[in-house]
Amino acid sequence: MKFGKGIPITATAEEMASRQRAISVSEFFEKNRHLLGYDNKAKAMLMIVKEGVDNSLDACEEARILPEIYVGIKEMGPDKHEIVIRDNGPGIVKEQIPKIFGRLLYGSKFHRLKQSRGQQGLGVSCAVLYSQLTTGTPATIISSTGDGRTHRYQLKIDVARNRPDVIETSAEEGEIWHGVEQRFVAESTYRENKQSVLEYIRQTAISNPYCNIILDCPTGHKEFKRGVGQLPAEPQEIMPHLYGVELGVLCRMLAATKARTILSFLTSEFSRLGKTSATEILLKAGITKNNNTLKPIPDTKLKPSRVSDEQARAIIEAVKQVKLVRPPLDCLSPLGTDLIKSGLVKELNPEFVTAVTRPPEVYRGWPFQIEAGLAFGGSIQSFSLMRFANRVPLLYQGGICAMTKSVQETDWRRYGIQSNKGIEEPLSIFVHMCSVWVPFTSESKESIANYDIIVREIKLALQECARHLSLWLSGKRKHAMLTKKKSTFEKYADETAGALSAMAGMPKDAIVQKILDIIKRKWEDMHGEQVEGEDTEPGPGSDQAAGPEGEPEHNASG
Amino acid sequence: MKFGKGIPITATAEEMASRQRAISVSEFFEKNRHLLGYDNKAKAMLMIVKEGVDNSLDACEEARILPEIYVGIKEMGPDKHEIVIRDNGPGIVKEQIPKIFGRLLYGSKFHRLKQSRGQQGLGVSCAVLYSQLTTGTPATIISSTGDGRTHRYQLKIDVARNRPDVIETSAEEGEIWHGVEQRFVAESTYRENKQSVLEYIRQTAISNPYCNIILDCPTGHKEFKRGVGQLPAEPQEIMPHLYGVELGVLCRMLAATKARTILSFLTSEFSRLGKTSATEILLKAGITKNNNTLKPIPDTKLKPSRVSDEQARAIIEAVKQVKLVRPPLDCLSPLGTDLIKSGLVKELNPEFVTAVTRPPEVYRGWPFQIEAGLAFGGSIQSFSLMRFANRVPLLYQGGICAMTKSVQETDWRRYGIQSNKGIEEPLSIFVHMCSVWVPFTSESKESIANYDIIVREIKLALQECARHLSLWLSGKRKHAMLTKKKSTFEKYADETAGALSAMAGMPKDAIVQKILDIIKRKWEDMHGEQVEGEDTEPGPGSDQAAGPEGEPEHNASG
Repeated sequence: MKFGKGIPITATAEEMASRQRAISVSEFFEKNRHLLGYDNKAKAMLMIVKEGVDNSLDACEEARILPEIYVGIKEMGPDKHEIVIRDNGPGIVKEQIPKIFGRLLYGSKFHRLKQSRGQQGLGVSCAVLYSQLTTGTPATIISSTGDGRTHRYQLKIDVARNRPDVIETSAEEGEIWHGVEQRFVAESTYRENKQSVLEYIRQTAISNPYCNIILDCPTGHKEFKRGVGQLPAEPQEIMPHLYGVELGVLCRMLAATKARTILSFLTSEFSRLGKTSATEILLKAGITKNNNTLKPIPDTKLKPSRVSDEQARAIIEAVKQVKLVRPPLDCLSPLGTDLIKSGLVKELNPEFVTAVTRPPEVYRGWPFQIEAGLAFGGSIQSFSLMRFANRVPLLYQGGICAMTKSVQETDWRRYGIQSNKGIEEPLSIFVHMCSVWVPFTSESKESIANYDIIVREIKLALQECARHLSLWLSGKRKHAMLTKKKSTFEKYADETAGALSAMAGMPKDAIVQKILDIIKRKWEDMHGEQVEGEDTEPGPGSDQAAGPEGEPEHNASG
Repeated sequence: MKFGKGIPITATAEEMASRQRAISVSEFFEKNRHLLGYDNKAKAMLMIVKEGVDNSLDACEEARILPEIYVGIKEMGPDKHEIVIRDNGPGIVKEQIPKIFGRLLYGSKFHRLKQSRGQQGLGVSCAVLYSQLTTGTPATIISSTGDGRTHRYQLKIDVARNRPDVIETSAEEGEIWHGVEQRFVAESTYRENKQSVLEYIRQTAISNPYCNIILDCPTGHKEFKRGVGQLPAEPQEIMPHLYGVELGVLCRMLAATKARTILSFLTSEFSRLGKTSATEILLKAGITKNNNTLKPIPDTKLKPSRVSDEQARAIIEAVKQVKLVRPPLDCLSPLGTDLIKSGLVKELNPEFVTAVTRPPEVYRGWPFQIEAGLAFGGSIQSFSLMRFANRVPLLYQGGICAMTKSVQETDWRRYGIQSNKGIEEPLSIFVHMCSVWVPFTSESKESIANYDIIVREIKLALQECARHLSLWLSGKRKHAMLTKKKSTFEKYADETAGALSAMAGMPKDAIVQKILDIIKRKWEDMHGEQVEGEDTEPGPGSDQAAGPEGEPEHNASG
């Protein structure tokens, strides 16, 4: 059946053809800048600071340098600020500066599997794009790699071509230093609320407690000092795991590989795939040298370039039937319970703190790991949830985030934590996901997609933390009850003694003393019992329920 | 102040540089396919059908052809389907087929300001990308423009280059027809729920009642017949309005224009900008020939290429101070109340239906228009909200959509509509936004951003519809109450007559007849009153509260 027979209207199809054009990725995101998080002027300021600081921290950590980050925000006019981000990282080599800052979809982090803050190749170039769009001002980048030369670039993005447009460049000899300074002038508003630059820096100081951060902003000079003097372990880059590779990607890898045989391709380009499993996959995929179904011989020497689409599809199907070793999980670099607790204590000054690091897990072939922390009481006044992905605070779109969902679906009352429509306690919840590829729900990287396994892991971490808090709370509440009882007895000691003195003809003072002695003895008995039975008196920053290393035990989950 | 003095670590910066690479937009969206809506297999099927049908409808309407759309879904294996979309549109000229289907960010709709379903240049090529990624199968495109030649392409996307990879192409002479047939084989699941292909087609039939749609799917053959035989007015393409143009874009336009003077540039490349306003803008922007502040003379003959960034910035600032004529609002093509009601009646068979088309409004310089409809009772069993943007049903991400927000924030109880946590009536709400640029919250085009003016317009449309429904409901409920009263009187007529007959010594039958006569007279009185006073007896498909043309009056809003 064909529709629309017989009416020639070629003109229209040709008219339409004449209007077809390519769209540069810069044009696309310029018109759709809300997709990148540049929805409004307050958020725009946050995004620029975030992209700059995230890149600085990534670079410092990769070069194993304890980060010193400076953020400066200076008003330049109504709703217009100069934003400066400076670091002590390794610097950027001269030739790369225009490409990194002047081109969308360019970078080192998209094509590798390694835990890092950036992963899309979009971030900082979008800050340049937004700045020039709103104020016409080029970005200024100053960098040195420690060779005594300081390079300075002023650049914009040529939007129609998505290429850097270098306005001015100069080099200076002399000073030996390394690092990068980025300057943007953008339409933006400075605010101090729960989704502001200040909150982002504060939370960054919590999740990166090995970092010194200085913030110079319209409300003054603020310093966030490091709480620990050591970087966490460096995350390792891994190869893709066959379990998460889709057919189209496999076909591309087959066409591009330098491996000479299908067997060496499989064992060298995928994570943890040995000869035995690879051979089993070939057999199950029917990639054999003979047609003997009883005794098939796998065609291990087949050239990768000669693998047909049909055979590639059979490999993907076979993978589902073969039990493969999981991807290496030591590629992740979680913060660990000590760093989490250190960050929470340093910035929140709570009465109680606890943290849990779950064992690594895998979603769609990508390793990930969940950590959680709870900080209770002390300087904390009300409930808050802090979400982090690869150590970066997530401040927007909490409503659709897997972390919010997990907190909402946890039965906090089971743990003695008052909760009605929301948690009604002075409690800060810290949730951190680290992964070689965080499944963000948008380019603006503000919330994490609801994969079942991710939600489950977050819930398990929260439950474990909640158990610790519950034990401490019940100790604290028992202690409070006993104290109240004791003071009631003490209050009535005098009156009781008066009555007893009249009846027994003994001096009242002696009776008062005896009653107080009894109360004291009972108090000590009960208190001693409590120490052994449940939990000690609460102390600031303690984590009584955790194991000997402050790291509670947990079961590996399926 | 410079951080990190003195420690040369050039190697690391260079190591990092060696890993920097460009990322093709295909690679980006392949890895981030959830951003395009390809989160899971059920949604993937919906997305492919939607992209295909949206393009078909756009093409038919642009060529002023009453659309005949065929959608076929055939199971090819477990979680694998062939999806066919065929139309009677103008066809696509041969040379454009590979580019339109084989390249992301390519199309005719991104660079123009015209109301259409597509606007990003991403849609259908992403269906090709997803198909090849999951099944390795190229897309097949068959097209004729009515010149007696049918072209057939099998193509994939070369992901690393974001360019078409034509696998096979052929042409056939003979048959005279026009239209396009698109075939995809993709990993996908067929479901029939509120977010399925069937629901999408059903809602498309409601919002495009001039369309014939056939759906051949695993559960059978379904036909959605058109309810009206005419296309709505064709939307007109407009030029950008200075009010919505940002500095970066203005600078690019200045560099690219063929206009010889700044004055002709301003008056010829922007919507509704006359010489008077343009001159006023130049004056306010300080673009003058002399420095006499008392009597400045605008430099209307300045070459656009010689306008400095500083002057362009001054123009943007000046625009805020000059009262400009709004963009032309007839560029939009709303459905109109008749089409909305026709669609709702045709597919939902309600007891009552009403619709409102608001006057056009402007957000960020872009014209938009809101329409709403309510369908109540009849075959409708419970509450539902149907969201549409440029006539396309939006089935996902309702939670963050301006339309959902507006429905939630409307006080339905004021209109006699039972509502507690949600609406508890057999009510279907229809909301439609049409615009030359719909502010979607993601590339998957599933929800509309919460601009204040958009939310306000939606609420006003809903309130007006709710008033119509309220009048009808109160009539209906008064009628129901009166009917109940009447039957109560009638029930007791016999008994009352017996008692009266015994007291007055009159024959009972005569008294019964008198009582019934009185009830009848009263009933007619009351009923007559009601007709004049409030509303008539409800009739199916009626819209009693609307004006004489079925189009209620409304006030233009500021």
